[in-house]
Amino acid sequence: MGDDILNRGLEGIRVAETRLSDIDGEAGELTIGGYSVDELARNATYEESVFLLFHDRLPSPDELDEFRADLAGQRTIGDEVRAVLRRAADEDKPAMDALRMGAAAANLGAGAEDPEADARRVIAVFPTIVATYWRYREGEAPVEPREDLRHAANYLYMLTGEEPDDPAVRGLETYLNTVVDHGLNASTFTARTVVSTESDVVSAATAAVGALKGPLHGGAPGPVLDMLRTVHERGDPEAFVREKLDAGERLMGFGHRVYRVRDPRAAVLSAAASEFYEDAGDTEFFESVKAFEDVAVDLLAEHKPDRRLDTNVEFYTAALLDGVGIPKELFTACFAVSRVGGWTAHALEQLGDNRLIRPLSTYVGDHDRSWTPVVER
Amino acid sequence: MGDDILNRGLEGIRVAETRLSDIDGEAGELTIGGYSVDELARNATYEESVFLLFHDRLPSPDELDEFRADLAGQRTIGDEVRAVLRRAADEDKPAMDALRMGAAAANLGAGAEDPEADARRVIAVFPTIVATYWRYREGEAPVEPREDLRHAANYLYMLTGEEPDDPAVRGLETYLNTVVDHGLNASTFTARTVVSTESDVVSAATAAVGALKGPLHGGAPGPVLDMLRTVHERGDPEAFVREKLDAGERLMGFGHRVYRVRDPRAAVLSAAASEFYEDAGDTEFFESVKAFEDVAVDLLAEHKPDRRLDTNVEFYTAALLDGVGIPKELFTACFAVSRVGGWTAHALEQLGDNRLIRPLSTYVGDHDRSWTPVVER
Repeated sequence: MGDDILNRGLEGIRVAETRLSDIDGEAGELTIGGYSVDELARNATYEESVFLLFHDRLPSPDELDEFRADLAGQRTIGDEVRAVLRRAADEDKPAMDALRMGAAAANLGAGAEDPEADARRVIAVFPTIVATYWRYREGEAPVEPREDLRHAANYLYMLTGEEPDDPAVRGLETYLNTVVDHGLNASTFTARTVVSTESDVVSAATAAVGALKGPLHGGAPGPVLDMLRTVHERGDPEAFVREKLDAGERLMGFGHRVYRVRDPRAAVLSAAASEFYEDAGDTEFFESVKAFEDVAVDLLAEHKPDRRLDTNVEFYTAALLDGVGIPKELFTACFAVSRVGGWTAHALEQLGDNRLIRPLSTYVGDHDRSWTPVVER
Repeated sequence: MGDDILNRGLEGIRVAETRLSDIDGEAGELTIGGYSVDELARNATYEESVFLLFHDRLPSPDELDEFRADLAGQRTIGDEVRAVLRRAADEDKPAMDALRMGAAAANLGAGAEDPEADARRVIAVFPTIVATYWRYREGEAPVEPREDLRHAANYLYMLTGEEPDDPAVRGLETYLNTVVDHGLNASTFTARTVVSTESDVVSAATAAVGALKGPLHGGAPGPVLDMLRTVHERGDPEAFVREKLDAGERLMGFGHRVYRVRDPRAAVLSAAASEFYEDAGDTEFFESVKAFEDVAVDLLAEHKPDRRLDTNVEFYTAALLDGVGIPKELFTACFAVSRVGGWTAHALEQLGDNRLIRPLSTYVGDHDRSWTPVVER
């Protein structure tokens, strides 16, 4: 087997067939469950997006009511898990660590192992885990989930203790729909690898949280927000971008490994943010964000004429999530609150037609070493 | 990219170069850290095996003292994690679920993120997590770890509350050394994929627990023990094997995806079990196990002349772990208590020369669906 090829990034290797999402990097198109990301994100509630991923069709009114009620009825986490989240907050662990701890314990208080039931349970508790951690971190008591609110609204409610207004819910929901699935990224692939051993969906989602935590995957939307705020305050985006480029620094929020044109999710999130800030009657910050994009894209094209660098999903994620009231420390965890729909759908798809994922390694170490007892070392 | 090849199991794809272990399936040879599995397993303490994996050489006496003391000094888990394990036990969740929960929270009470420190912490707490869960499940109070005992001895001590005798410690330690690493199996690959995003070692080990939980990977050593006990009580292995083969059933404990001859770990574990049962003055059960192996190998060769089916690692794992006092419900978790050394070493190796692992998928769903509002469905 020594002549097999070493492919450390698995570039160009297709490891799954999926009906969940399709990325066309050249054309800048993303299809989720058969819908363009724009069509889905604008129209769906998060519950509809998840139902679509699970069942490859939209729910009937009755099915949607049932699906919503099922998720809403299992949002509570037990006191033991709360105590762990409180400890994570007290020790100032990152939100993604707290989410990993909560996710790992998601089947406490739930029934026996069942793939789709596990998937629904995990999706239901992710916002509760993140919000509970955040409340402790802010020195506040956690807010009990409310069954009468839909997924996105209840998440904001648990974060703040106040019922959110419609523009904020709609803004967050558009975000949750937009990033719910995106082909075989590292976390989704991790989830599929875990269940390929016929393990369970809770284990798969927990593993995926760990993969998303890495900055090469989950990115750095928090620092993007800091940058947007700095540029807004300074008021001279051109000077800012020129300084960065002259110093040879990468400009956060631009460029993507797959997309050769503008990330289609950036357009959806930009429109959602625009709508949100207009509804909120607070357009000043967002106008400076858009002006920054225009200036940066032009200067990047001038600077690297051979490669188009457009805004990626992080750029408008920062602007939109900040607007609807998500603290920047929770941006990556909020990504997970959405993507868990995709992770669990991929896990179910993998389990439905499974094959163990088991690549090889090339050994580069010694052979036939002889043992030396410790006293002779 | 449509002409890339679909390879759902990643067969024949080499995704890492490693100096940690090497499997020669044709020859039936396993090298761990440069030593044959036999050479390592017979001679090393578990702490030496892990040091070897981390540093590619055996520790000096001083280094070994320091390494042992470091692991021994951080075996305690916090009250919050204990409470979660108690809940898992009360709800009769499997040991691997409890281990996933405890692993996910392993960095509570530990310092800031640091790959090698995280690795040591995870290794140190795995036995505590498993033993704490087990004590609760048995309706007993957890046993505080003892710093003066080495890794394997302390694990047995925490399970039973009694200081184990030398044969049991040596038997368990041989097991822990034997299965500490084994190329790129699904859980080790999961650990490497998670840190390939530049995530952390705690996340990697937690993810790996989830992958090992799956029966296609972690296997079923518990049921193997039941089988060995049944055959021992019935006293007629030939009739048992013939019944299974005539019924077209698979014989547990035989055959391996990679090894075409006897799994070299089976030989090591068989010798260790033989030694253990002799020392314990209780050879009756083990003699029937060996007789069962002989009969089964002969009958399998008769039944499937084109493919050799030999005992695999599970066969003697069951006999050895049962002997040293590990309850069968903990066999897979005990596998993890060993393998976490390999997982963390692979994670450190990956982080030391990293590349994001990100394969592709092939989309097989629809495109350009049009949204239908819920009231019109």
